[in-house]
Amino acid sequence: MSSNRLIYLPLGGAGEVGMNCYVYGYGPEGKERFIVVDLGVTFPDMDSSPGVDLIFPDVEWLEARKNRIDGVFITHAHEDHVGAIGHTFSKLGAPIFTRAFTANIARRKLDEYGVDPSAVTTVSAYPETITAGTFEVSFVPISHSIPESSALLIDTPVGRLIHTGDFKLDPDPLVGEAWDPVLWTEISKPGVKALICDSTNVFSKDAGRSESSLAPNIRGLIESADQMVIATTFASNVARVKTLAEAGRAAGRSICLMGRAMQRMVQAALETGVLADFPPTIGPEDALDVPRGNLMLLVTGSQGERRAASAQLANGKYRGMTLKEGDLFLFSSKTIPGNERGVIRIINQLSELGVDVVDDASGQYHVSGHANRPDLEVMHDTVAPQIVVPMHGEHRHLREHHKLCQSKGLQSIVAVNGTMVDLTGNAPKVAEFVETGRTYLDGSTQIGALDGVVRNRIRMALNGHVMVNVILDEDEPLGEPWCELMGLPEVGESRVPLVDILEEDLHQFLMRAGGKTLRDDAKLEDELRKITRRTSQSEIGKKPEVTVIISRLN
Amino acid sequence: MSSNRLIYLPLGGAGEVGMNCYVYGYGPEGKERFIVVDLGVTFPDMDSSPGVDLIFPDVEWLEARKNRIDGVFITHAHEDHVGAIGHTFSKLGAPIFTRAFTANIARRKLDEYGVDPSAVTTVSAYPETITAGTFEVSFVPISHSIPESSALLIDTPVGRLIHTGDFKLDPDPLVGEAWDPVLWTEISKPGVKALICDSTNVFSKDAGRSESSLAPNIRGLIESADQMVIATTFASNVARVKTLAEAGRAAGRSICLMGRAMQRMVQAALETGVLADFPPTIGPEDALDVPRGNLMLLVTGSQGERRAASAQLANGKYRGMTLKEGDLFLFSSKTIPGNERGVIRIINQLSELGVDVVDDASGQYHVSGHANRPDLEVMHDTVAPQIVVPMHGEHRHLREHHKLCQSKGLQSIVAVNGTMVDLTGNAPKVAEFVETGRTYLDGSTQIGALDGVVRNRIRMALNGHVMVNVILDEDEPLGEPWCELMGLPEVGESRVPLVDILEEDLHQFLMRAGGKTLRDDAKLEDELRKITRRTSQSEIGKKPEVTVIISRLN
Repeated sequence: MSSNRLIYLPLGGAGEVGMNCYVYGYGPEGKERFIVVDLGVTFPDMDSSPGVDLIFPDVEWLEARKNRIDGVFITHAHEDHVGAIGHTFSKLGAPIFTRAFTANIARRKLDEYGVDPSAVTTVSAYPETITAGTFEVSFVPISHSIPESSALLIDTPVGRLIHTGDFKLDPDPLVGEAWDPVLWTEISKPGVKALICDSTNVFSKDAGRSESSLAPNIRGLIESADQMVIATTFASNVARVKTLAEAGRAAGRSICLMGRAMQRMVQAALETGVLADFPPTIGPEDALDVPRGNLMLLVTGSQGERRAASAQLANGKYRGMTLKEGDLFLFSSKTIPGNERGVIRIINQLSELGVDVVDDASGQYHVSGHANRPDLEVMHDTVAPQIVVPMHGEHRHLREHHKLCQSKGLQSIVAVNGTMVDLTGNAPKVAEFVETGRTYLDGSTQIGALDGVVRNRIRMALNGHVMVNVILDEDEPLGEPWCELMGLPEVGESRVPLVDILEEDLHQFLMRAGGKTLRDDAKLEDELRKITRRTSQSEIGKKPEVTVIISRLN
Repeated sequence: MSSNRLIYLPLGGAGEVGMNCYVYGYGPEGKERFIVVDLGVTFPDMDSSPGVDLIFPDVEWLEARKNRIDGVFITHAHEDHVGAIGHTFSKLGAPIFTRAFTANIARRKLDEYGVDPSAVTTVSAYPETITAGTFEVSFVPISHSIPESSALLIDTPVGRLIHTGDFKLDPDPLVGEAWDPVLWTEISKPGVKALICDSTNVFSKDAGRSESSLAPNIRGLIESADQMVIATTFASNVARVKTLAEAGRAAGRSICLMGRAMQRMVQAALETGVLADFPPTIGPEDALDVPRGNLMLLVTGSQGERRAASAQLANGKYRGMTLKEGDLFLFSSKTIPGNERGVIRIINQLSELGVDVVDDASGQYHVSGHANRPDLEVMHDTVAPQIVVPMHGEHRHLREHHKLCQSKGLQSIVAVNGTMVDLTGNAPKVAEFVETGRTYLDGSTQIGALDGVVRNRIRMALNGHVMVNVILDEDEPLGEPWCELMGLPEVGESRVPLVDILEEDLHQFLMRAGGKTLRDDAKLEDELRKITRRTSQSEIGKKPEVTVIISRLN
């Protein structure tokens, strides 16, 4: 019994923002029973993952131990916490537990991926407790930017853990449960071994602002508008969507939700009772008949996503609706780092249409869903844990949170993805490093981030691609070699088509090549590639990717 | 004579930030004489221009009229104003005029591109005047974030123009000339027909801050550091580099400049007398012998550029130097939109090394080089022009600047790249739209942005590439078709190699294909491509780019 250990292992979300996946385990080394907290996605970009559809944690480590997983617990319904359940369920096979609103979203995801939605069990908030192996787990309500976000209270044989999930300390979040210091003091009273704590906003020095603080600003802005009003925000921020809709109604406008995610989130909130009421809405067809000054569109695409409603509206038309000179477009959102180009593109397109754009630059129309530095301190002080493990953030966030803990005399550890932390004793210590990684959803296939597939795509994008075709008959070249170019300039230094120069150089080489080279596919391919790259370098100053196709007739 | 017209035509920089190039012309329609103001570059990104080295304006319109160009005037030495002179000089062939510091940089650029540096003529500041065709042009000193930035005073037969270039109103820029309201009142007194005016910071509501306001903050920060200090900023901001170096010296540190651009800019400033003195510096080799607490590195790469000194230091080592726990890294710069990912990558790498990072989030360590909204109003009021033409900015900036002018009762016009504005009369009017575009420097070749070369690279990056190889002998398939894959998953739905499934499907098709198809290269290629895409879609959920290579032996 003394050889049992309590471990914490982030497989995603620690050392990055997004793709959250945390493992807790208890038992003898190598025989621990596990629970998994969150299975989220992150989003690809052209720089590092062109053509990829979604990114999620490589769960190979868990898959190899799937018979030891007693449950998957989802803290809330943001994509970076729940988005990968459809893609990973078959590998893990463990039951999924979460609260009603998140369950509604999660079941739809499983269904879309052909998994029986009954894999998800709906759990009520604390004090309801799920027994998962040696763990007792409860969902503790906490405010965030989505309904029913929850921390997890995890009782283990060696003490209580609290995994905050994403959170802020909002006394009036409008939808969902407020920050409840009485409840949190109560659950902390027995003593908390470790607080595993969101780090996202550790660099924000002022206390966070309440969701409710925005309503007067938003109402004032919409009241001042003459023509059509279009507002976008994160669809999952149901409180914000409601605030926007109510402000529109108060200004005498009909409300139209545009974009699938926007409709789905409001529907899920209503179905699960999270939202008791929502202003009446009209469909996109009916919206076309409403005078522009009496209409407000609530649209998806606050991050500049190319296919979302806002991008399509900015680009010309969406569901028959067009924007016009004097319309007001509100970004009730912040731009997540990395999405700036897409958002700016939309703002400029709106500018070309004569649409007036208001964003969160003034701080009046958006608040963050994460705890700022002083709020983190309130959490530390309320829970008064033996250990703090900074979680959910890039390395700089985890380290800053760690330094904050140290400055307060709290024990803490920086644990990035793959760092297995032993929490059994009084001090956290690194038990081992586990190989972790990213899995790409590419079309309908899952590939490893390091499989080389995407690396080859990036190379073709940077360098272009030359295909060299050679036919040999009884080890003698039959005709001349033939090149196809893709993604390369047609003409270089010599002002003669590059393809002609390449073919000539390759032909000259084949004429000179000895039988030994011509008989050896690997050697021949290597030489042809070298010549192609060298000639290209001198002609166009680039070394392309080269595929050599040797056909032998004999 | 009454048919003469005065025109303004932006070919770059209006409707975007970067790649500045403006044309002024005077004369009978179609026979105007021209001057060109600035020939700048903009930088490629993976999203829209993978593999491209530099982007500059398509100067085809000018090239077709090169015998009517009387001079190229460069306002200042930022890359987005001077970067393209080497690449475009041979197309335009016109003499280049600029002030000493900019000339120093410009000549080096021409030299690197094999152009005789004597093409650049050094001009003193106003009141020296260059006669260029019917224009009289002077360089009017104005503060910015680089030495000797200048507005252009352009006297035309129908009135005076002022082209601001990039500017701010800094009473104490530390290096270079201060904003001089007396001088500007003097040059405006005769009456100014049109002010062509920087719009970059029109959304910044507070008056701009002086370069000199940073010195105490920077000095305080560096004094507080125990270990090595590393600071990065835009190398061309010589005043900032000097402030940083002086703060380092004041704290008893040896100063080492790292990165070619940093050394070059300081050298150019000293050579041209712009900088009278600069603290003594030591070379990278000597820096290795200095105790870390007595050393300060001034490095390039504030925008996260992968090859710059800061990226290499963050990544491990640069010129023998490594960073350590407790070092202080200062970004005395802002991150230009679009560069966030690269900068954040470096900050996280520094965090992993235990280096403490300070950026401009607090506003203490960086000021902008552009005029904010109230400063633009001061400029409008000082010059009191008949017309304001917003320049240098994305569409949203130009439009906001235009709205600002309208609100003050000033005549104004939004003119994006390609909009030829007739300034002859009392009101600006659009004369015509000229086709404009971007030229890519790709390796050593110049290609048009719309040539399709880069589009094909993007497609390969998103979709992967399949090469299909078929050999026909007297219109009969010889052997089986053969595929090569690049950038595609090896295995799809069927759990069999994708290449095998593709080859089998193509083989089946060839067996069934009639002589008519087999004899027709275009038809055969089309069918083989369709099958490849269809099979790939069902196997891996993606439709790849396909190159079909048909070899006929007869």
